Amino acid sequence: MRDRIALVTGAFGFLGRHVARALAQEGFSVQGIGHGAWTREEWSRHGLSFWHACDVTLENLLTHARPPELLVHCAGSASVSFSMAEPLLDYRKTVETTAAALEYLRLRAPEGLLVLPSSGSVYGSREEAVSESAPTSPQSAYAVHKLMAEALCASYGRWFGVRSAIFRFFSVYGPGLRKQLLWDVGTRLARGEAWCAGTGDEARDWLHVEDAAQLMLRALDRASTACPIVNGGTGVAATVREVVTELSEALGARRDFTYTGRARPGDPFRFVADIGLARSWGWAPRVPWRTGVRDYAAWFVKGAP
Amino acid sequence: MRDRIALVTGAFGFLGRHVARALAQEGFSVQGIGHGAWTREEWSRHGLSFWHACDVTLENLLTHARPPELLVHCAGSASVSFSMAEPLLDYRKTVETTAAALEYLRLRAPEGLLVLPSSGSVYGSREEAVSESAPTSPQSAYAVHKLMAEALCASYGRWFGVRSAIFRFFSVYGPGLRKQLLWDVGTRLARGEAWCAGTGDEARDWLHVEDAAQLMLRALDRASTACPIVNGGTGVAATVREVVTELSEALGARRDFTYTGRARPGDPFRFVADIGLARSWGWAPRVPWRTGVRDYAAWFVKGAP
Repeated sequence: MRDRIALVTGAFGFLGRHVARALAQEGFSVQGIGHGAWTREEWSRHGLSFWHACDVTLENLLTHARPPELLVHCAGSASVSFSMAEPLLDYRKTVETTAAALEYLRLRAPEGLLVLPSSGSVYGSREEAVSESAPTSPQSAYAVHKLMAEALCASYGRWFGVRSAIFRFFSVYGPGLRKQLLWDVGTRLARGEAWCAGTGDEARDWLHVEDAAQLMLRALDRASTACPIVNGGTGVAATVREVVTELSEALGARRDFTYTGRARPGDPFRFVADIGLARSWGWAPRVPWRTGVRDYAAWFVKGAP
Repeated sequence: MRDRIALVTGAFGFLGRHVARALAQEGFSVQGIGHGAWTREEWSRHGLSFWHACDVTLENLLTHARPPELLVHCAGSASVSFSMAEPLLDYRKTVETTAAALEYLRLRAPEGLLVLPSSGSVYGSREEAVSESAPTSPQSAYAVHKLMAEALCASYGRWFGVRSAIFRFFSVYGPGLRKQLLWDVGTRLARGEAWCAGTGDEARDWLHVEDAAQLMLRALDRASTACPIVNGGTGVAATVREVVTELSEALGARRDFTYTGRARPGDPFRFVADIGLARSWGWAPRVPWRTGVRDYAAWFVKGAP
């Protein structure tokens, strides 16, 4: 019996390496492609059996001789601020690579499934738990580009038979994430600083990266030419203040934090996923945010290896 | 006084060369960029003062030293069937070039205006005259890619201050068009054939290319960071049978045409623009379809020079 092949683009990144490991645990032979200088020992530890350091282009994908059963397209921009500083590069990272991945499947792996991690930010700002049927209202170039990548998946499904599934993730966090709230606060605490942007009352839906990876594996059953879209979150809101306090305690640091009080423009006050559809796919989040924040703190104090 | 610069991408194409000539008549110094092997005598006749034969990429655009007041982005795919045969190439022709044009303006000509010719096909099939507020429902990869290009224009307007206007054209035709209904029927008649696909009863909104070019010039007053979208049509429907009969008469050919009776999948039965918004911009179509078809026939019998 030949082994099952999965291909993870952007496997060097935060989400990519967690997905790679989850796929390896499911028995896949996991190939990685993308940017990133790491050793065989490092990428092997993250579940990869092969690493192709290059741009994610059609030409480079075509060098992969064995068609994957599953292509998880983690390559792409993961930063709103980058998209606002370098919109063309952000577009290329997110949209062009998705076009290449879809064309690769069309040409060489028509039975393969594509998984696209997208973003809850495509909905814009919403006070109520947002379901997949909510209208989209992107508030950044990053979110526009994610929607464009989604549109390509739907197009390849409808007219070219490529099966895919889109996951609109909310605030994914976990060991290995070297940016965003937990990282910023952790590094500030290490410097003896205890401040945070915003009011502290902003509520977010914090999804542990291992839950995110498990949700994407559901695509093995659910991906289709109809290109289903499903939210990735917990359905539970925790405020920035709650999360920061938890992290601070876990790191054994002082607990009196200063908030700048200035909300970032475009930042919603409360942003939570309706995860009814994801639950109906047989998935549920396993890591409550308090547990996950302590998990992050444990990784952080080990020197963020 | 320095001359006013306009830049037309895809100026070798059907729409591009008509726009170039219209801009030259308005007093612009018109630069062209794109694919196409033609002589200086040829491109000069179409109003160009400069022709840059190359891919429409950011790198090539940046070689243009003088920032344009207006960039009319006629480069891009113009074929539904091409998009269904070569979706990645169609995507690149339409979306990537639009991204390059927008980034060029952002970096080098922030006061410049971008005009994007889009397509009525983004609406999908509608029986009633369709206004710009109608929901989009693309029925081909071509239409998906046009919508993606539109989304980029809106994004660059909203976050990067690039002013643009989008024109969703219906059935644009005129001298120089070497494909689609009039060309196909004309060349068949020249071979002694008199047949046509479909039922003949399909109704379309036929816009003469010179009217299309004049409409795009309205962007000089109307382009904005809000990226307005306006339909380009006449608001009048004529059936394929009416148009074919008119062309056949104008070419002095026999008038008994056979229709295959098979509608092409996805082809709407009736497809007409609501042009109230375009009229409110101070524009009106000047060429009735009968006049325009005879104009086309006159060009065709001259040997389609």
